[in-house]
Amino acid sequence: MTEFLTDAQIAQQAELKPITEIIDNLGLDQDMFELYGKYKAKLNIHGLKDQKADGKLILVTAISPTPAGEGKTTTSIGLGDGLNRIGKKAVIALREPSLGPVFGMKGGAAGGGYSQVVPMEDINLHFTGDFHAIGAANNLLAALIDNHIHHGNALNIDTRRIVWKRVVDMNDRQLRNIVDGLGGKANGVPREDSYEITVASEVMAILCLAKDITDLKERLSRIVIGYNYDSDPITAGDLKAQGAMAALLKEAIKPNLVQTLEHNPVFIHGGPFANIAHGCNSVIATETALKLGDYTVTEAGFGADLGAEKFIDIKGRELGRKPDAVVLVATIRALKMHGGLKKTELKGEDLVALEKGLPNLMKHIENIQTVYNLPLVVAINKFPTDTDAELALVTEKVNALGVEVSLSDVWAKGGEGAIDLAEKVVKIAEQPSQGTFVYEDDTTIKEKIEAIVTKVYGGNKVVYGAGVLTELKNIEANGYGNLPVCMAKTQYSFTDNPKVLGRPTDFEVDIRGVKLSAGAGFIVVLTGEMMTMPGLPKVPASEGIDLSEDGVISGLF
Amino acid sequence: MTEFLTDAQIAQQAELKPITEIIDNLGLDQDMFELYGKYKAKLNIHGLKDQKADGKLILVTAISPTPAGEGKTTTSIGLGDGLNRIGKKAVIALREPSLGPVFGMKGGAAGGGYSQVVPMEDINLHFTGDFHAIGAANNLLAALIDNHIHHGNALNIDTRRIVWKRVVDMNDRQLRNIVDGLGGKANGVPREDSYEITVASEVMAILCLAKDITDLKERLSRIVIGYNYDSDPITAGDLKAQGAMAALLKEAIKPNLVQTLEHNPVFIHGGPFANIAHGCNSVIATETALKLGDYTVTEAGFGADLGAEKFIDIKGRELGRKPDAVVLVATIRALKMHGGLKKTELKGEDLVALEKGLPNLMKHIENIQTVYNLPLVVAINKFPTDTDAELALVTEKVNALGVEVSLSDVWAKGGEGAIDLAEKVVKIAEQPSQGTFVYEDDTTIKEKIEAIVTKVYGGNKVVYGAGVLTELKNIEANGYGNLPVCMAKTQYSFTDNPKVLGRPTDFEVDIRGVKLSAGAGFIVVLTGEMMTMPGLPKVPASEGIDLSEDGVISGLF
Repeated sequence: MTEFLTDAQIAQQAELKPITEIIDNLGLDQDMFELYGKYKAKLNIHGLKDQKADGKLILVTAISPTPAGEGKTTTSIGLGDGLNRIGKKAVIALREPSLGPVFGMKGGAAGGGYSQVVPMEDINLHFTGDFHAIGAANNLLAALIDNHIHHGNALNIDTRRIVWKRVVDMNDRQLRNIVDGLGGKANGVPREDSYEITVASEVMAILCLAKDITDLKERLSRIVIGYNYDSDPITAGDLKAQGAMAALLKEAIKPNLVQTLEHNPVFIHGGPFANIAHGCNSVIATETALKLGDYTVTEAGFGADLGAEKFIDIKGRELGRKPDAVVLVATIRALKMHGGLKKTELKGEDLVALEKGLPNLMKHIENIQTVYNLPLVVAINKFPTDTDAELALVTEKVNALGVEVSLSDVWAKGGEGAIDLAEKVVKIAEQPSQGTFVYEDDTTIKEKIEAIVTKVYGGNKVVYGAGVLTELKNIEANGYGNLPVCMAKTQYSFTDNPKVLGRPTDFEVDIRGVKLSAGAGFIVVLTGEMMTMPGLPKVPASEGIDLSEDGVISGLF
Repeated sequence: MTEFLTDAQIAQQAELKPITEIIDNLGLDQDMFELYGKYKAKLNIHGLKDQKADGKLILVTAISPTPAGEGKTTTSIGLGDGLNRIGKKAVIALREPSLGPVFGMKGGAAGGGYSQVVPMEDINLHFTGDFHAIGAANNLLAALIDNHIHHGNALNIDTRRIVWKRVVDMNDRQLRNIVDGLGGKANGVPREDSYEITVASEVMAILCLAKDITDLKERLSRIVIGYNYDSDPITAGDLKAQGAMAALLKEAIKPNLVQTLEHNPVFIHGGPFANIAHGCNSVIATETALKLGDYTVTEAGFGADLGAEKFIDIKGRELGRKPDAVVLVATIRALKMHGGLKKTELKGEDLVALEKGLPNLMKHIENIQTVYNLPLVVAINKFPTDTDAELALVTEKVNALGVEVSLSDVWAKGGEGAIDLAEKVVKIAEQPSQGTFVYEDDTTIKEKIEAIVTKVYGGNKVVYGAGVLTELKNIEANGYGNLPVCMAKTQYSFTDNPKVLGRPTDFEVDIRGVKLSAGAGFIVVLTGEMMTMPGLPKVPASEGIDLSEDGVISGLF
């Protein structure tokens, strides 16, 4: 019987190449990079300023996620390795994982099996400090707001309407709802306040959408921190905060270079939430990868209804282009859950459940084909429990839509397991394709929301909660009506109800609130309560983590 | 007329050597270091494990500080450069500056003029991320405490008696007094809480006193986070937090190597508060410097009554040695303030005020000579406004005590301005000296406090506030009576009243509270309110800070 190694064992046994060698392989000058230890480096993007970003852009997305797991990041890494194996120069561009959740549930966020990015532990802990810098910039702005109020509140800020929150990169539910500024005159002004986890910060979204430092500062200055007593928006620019915030982000804005287990280049940079933000790595890193590789493999958060839509409508607008091809990741296990099975019922063959779950995949395919208007290939991320009949059924149904299927085995085989996928990707990316936005800039916010709900989700009605339409009018009156919308919806369903799996039809989507992210440049549309500060479980993973005298971490994953 | 350059201009015009060259000059293998960009590196201390720490240890301390400024860090850097100029292999070991205050008042903390440590901006901003790691470790423990209570509070923690606070490296008075855990059952348990600035964290003091990773974990596990309803102390070890906290500190525990403007090696590592903690750089960095240099120049916070006393009684106990020589820094300007002048009255010669202020210097000299029992030299940090008569007066009075004076001009001249000081230091450090603790381990806490107050401060009585003696009994009953004490007293006076300058006699010191830092390994004795979370001024320095498109920071200093 085969002994399977854990992800951590595979990563710890891997022999990494010095990052200087990865830089050489990219054909770049070592002087353009600053090393962070032997296996991480930050790229000074100025050296690439005039180079063209004309590589092909491959977006990896997935069916609606289930607890069975889809393996989108693992597939992205394996595909990058696979493309390199077939002689294409491919660069991977991924999100940075958040530190806080590491101490809650076990599990890293740098791929799995033989498709991992290393050094995995560094990447999952402080990495190159980007998230701490984002937290500091966020919290500097928070301190400046309350300091302004403390010293007389010349801007007449309404302390009941401050929307800027403090952040920490930790799962700390105790900070979800607080009252601060207590203790009398010398200690601030009492008000209700709230913390979010750092990745939920608008500063994170801004860093990921900024094209350069000038754009970064302009976005930071546009942040709406709250409203005055006349209901006018107050911005970070009104507090002269953007320069100091940008100074704190001086290094964080530079993309981080690491490597796959197969020593191919990976930029890991930025990691905004995929619900209240757009859930993609940075525009700067993606552009950099497009300049350096013939193929750039990147991913978007959650399923293709959320991540891919935001990639096209939000990041795509900043990037000035759409993907050349899409890889839609699915697993037999997850499709069976969409067909009604529980996670404990996935061991045996079940063609009935699989067929019942397939419409989820079909709807995502249709969206990519007819709404986003992009060529795609479906990647089935193989599990040992998948049967030939199950794989054949999926292949047949997908092929019937004119779409190719690739059976990908990257967890067990690394890039070798994605050679077929890589070849299919190369083929479809050669087709000329323009892609289509789901909505145009100059439509109303309501029209944008309705376009997404009807075209992408397949719903038939949008229902606005109390006050939402007034708030939309305020946003348009304040001049933000031309911004794209950022849907904050459960990732588990096309609907706003996480329990409705598969391919639901004839449903309404309830809009419960909207939130202006003027700095990031989008309007967040809330379809329910979004958790922006996780908690820890009763027995947190931290209890099993240790550091040995010679500096080796154990129990992290 | 001479144009003076600002500290920032001097630092930005400096040509730094690659840190790899500084490593070569230390005679060390490049593989022992991890680079953080081109001019910073972290040392893996394992490579030095068996080497002896037999260099001479030079402690730089000062008279009681005044708003006129003494220049202790600048003198330390200049002395290090001066020692290297006269052919001695000297290594400097300093504290890391805190990020938060950078946005409040202008002014860096990496020396001044031609005696600076570079890259100054990096050092004053995120540097190598140590403080963020310390903050994360601190806040992980805080989250674990409240998570434990949320999930049923098996340890029966009394939420009114939690002494562990959350931290942020920001001047944010709004967080001094808060109520958290609001919002009902899913969101924690409501309680009063409080934030401190990261440098005030006990984790910072622990990192600075730990000898290795094993010692670090033991100290972390000993942290008392609060008490249960039976008044028993609850520790971080009870929450199984020390392993994960140590994992977060994996890189932070490694000393950071940078350079002076004259390209001499400087370890900048750790920066605990000098009031509620001991105010010195890390034991690990100091030991490392002692292994690598014939001379190690280091400094302690505040005046010689606080920093030097704690260096000897707290850090000295961990280090297992005392300084070989002490440099006591004073300025003519500061002595005149001790003689009653205001900061606006310091321009002209004033021998009367100077003579009136000299007893402050005399008392510090006597302490070093007869209480600490160490050889010393007085360094007068020269200002252009000092007159010959003023310098002669100080020299005469100090010489009368058998102590040499050196006129140091390191701000204007760098190491060249400290050649005389370096020669005098070499001479006195050759005298065999043992040094004396102010108190022994096995005396009671009361006896320790009284030894410091009477011998070092020159007071004649200690008055204990309500409840303090009971609290001391509790601490002794819980088994912590053998720990050294860490006096939290105003730095401006030998007394507990910041307005009493010079050399006061016949005074009482009021003890208002005590705080056990069982992990750091000392008992903090509070003589008044200690500010552990600063605020920002009405016009914060942040408003003038900017980052240009090519990544250059302006307005930082």
